[in-house]
Amino acid sequence: MPSWNDGTLKSDIIAYVDKVTKKGSPDFIPEEFRIATFDNDGTLWAEKPYVQELFAFYKVKKMVEAKPELAQKQPFKAVVEKDKTFFEKGGDKALIELVAATHTGMTEDEFETSVNDFFKNAKYPGKNVTVRQIRYQPQLELLNYLRANGFKTYIVTGGTIEVVRAISQDFYGIPKDQVVGTSFKYKYDNAKNAVQREPALDHFNDKEGKPVGIQLHIGQRPVFACGNEGGAGDIAMLKYSQGNKYPSFQLLVNHNDSIREYSYQEKDNASLNAAAKNKWHVVDMKKDWKKVFSDN
Amino acid sequence: MPSWNDGTLKSDIIAYVDKVTKKGSPDFIPEEFRIATFDNDGTLWAEKPYVQELFAFYKVKKMVEAKPELAQKQPFKAVVEKDKTFFEKGGDKALIELVAATHTGMTEDEFETSVNDFFKNAKYPGKNVTVRQIRYQPQLELLNYLRANGFKTYIVTGGTIEVVRAISQDFYGIPKDQVVGTSFKYKYDNAKNAVQREPALDHFNDKEGKPVGIQLHIGQRPVFACGNEGGAGDIAMLKYSQGNKYPSFQLLVNHNDSIREYSYQEKDNASLNAAAKNKWHVVDMKKDWKKVFSDN
Repeated sequence: MPSWNDGTLKSDIIAYVDKVTKKGSPDFIPEEFRIATFDNDGTLWAEKPYVQELFAFYKVKKMVEAKPELAQKQPFKAVVEKDKTFFEKGGDKALIELVAATHTGMTEDEFETSVNDFFKNAKYPGKNVTVRQIRYQPQLELLNYLRANGFKTYIVTGGTIEVVRAISQDFYGIPKDQVVGTSFKYKYDNAKNAVQREPALDHFNDKEGKPVGIQLHIGQRPVFACGNEGGAGDIAMLKYSQGNKYPSFQLLVNHNDSIREYSYQEKDNASLNAAAKNKWHVVDMKKDWKKVFSDN
Repeated sequence: MPSWNDGTLKSDIIAYVDKVTKKGSPDFIPEEFRIATFDNDGTLWAEKPYVQELFAFYKVKKMVEAKPELAQKQPFKAVVEKDKTFFEKGGDKALIELVAATHTGMTEDEFETSVNDFFKNAKYPGKNVTVRQIRYQPQLELLNYLRANGFKTYIVTGGTIEVVRAISQDFYGIPKDQVVGTSFKYKYDNAKNAVQREPALDHFNDKEGKPVGIQLHIGQRPVFACGNEGGAGDIAMLKYSQGNKYPSFQLLVNHNDSIREYSYQEKDNASLNAAAKNKWHVVDMKKDWKKVFSDN
């Protein structure tokens, strides 16, 4: 893990992996139980803004181009007119409305084509790089290190499942079926022989939804769980992994690097407080990471 | 595949695998898209009766032992008194009631313990063997053969997901997270730090529910799909796999072997008719399988 600075955290990670993979050790974990789950936004790549948001705006643009009268209809109107108050006032409800309007009402194949088109040219605002380049280099190395030691790595994201699946293999070496995320209802359309995306939320995979998504998709508690502070989205997942009967490891990324990445904290410090209380490991981005972003 | 008799079907399977795994061939399928899905009941093991049913009866017995007054309450009463008319009259609704009463209202960890206890001593009625021994030997060899050729194998079952996950690795070499099945609603219980099983059906993974379960859990169409005739449960899955942009293979097990296994047909022959119409491959159990059951 060349992009991790030498120090307590790096040696704690290595010591943990060594002890649970050493045959005969009392802490040994058989391979089928070496489940490692990673949040995505703010944990594997930057989240200021969310890539999901960029995709929703991209879709609005494409949909309005194809059907200009949509520009007069909410939530498209607010996006076209850059009306931030619409989303500020509307909160989560308005955001889910925007996601539903841009992510459903089509077949799965059509949706995936549009996601792939988006990722082909997507740029990250403020950083002047491609979306690929906002991946955290130390985390790519950690994923590889865990896999080399027999861990199966998963993404457990609040983002919508197919948007992340579109790049999970290419960006992170994680196959589509190892992505757990927010999903809309599906319906099989017999005449089209296709899965249709319905405009109703099926599962919201954030906060206390994460252990639920993990149970549904993975079927066992992780032994290694990694999230980030910022939106308190990963507390339940880290706590859930700590309930494993095997020795477990919890890791929380702290966004304290305003120069190389971003600096932001939760108002109530919920994630960092939970980390202190439960003895989770915290990534001090400024100190622990030699390098933040991936070059390519 | 020593338990498959030589003949057209065996050579068709081998020819398909050869052509899609040969680099440079126009039919080549990259490994990440080599998705093979198998139904479980009647496809990988016998379904007369369903193992799920045996488990539900086992749970009723245990629950009534712990709390005798349950014997006066439906659906427990019907099971205790062997009242078949209750289930005949009640149809799917009564069955789901029985499954909900025995499969929910506890934490995931408690439920999994009871499933594991059941499988330790479970015997299969009529055949005087363990549940392990009702696996079809030729199918175990087919799973191994596909995996040796870079296919990722999945179970896509109408049965409940955790019951099958309890044995999927041991019985079939398929990890828990590669099992797609019927699921109940889950809720994360923060105080217990556990996932609670709620008495409400979340997803019924049969018939047209199978492509939906595949999309949710796997995220792509299978190229190889195998089911069985008997309850018309796999028609949608086989048809869905045939819509793959890559060359695909559909296989349907025909239960025509009253001597070694069972002989049963759908009244309307829906599955075999769909197979004939869509040129799916049919396993003639009597003719194609040298041996039916696994010895151990």
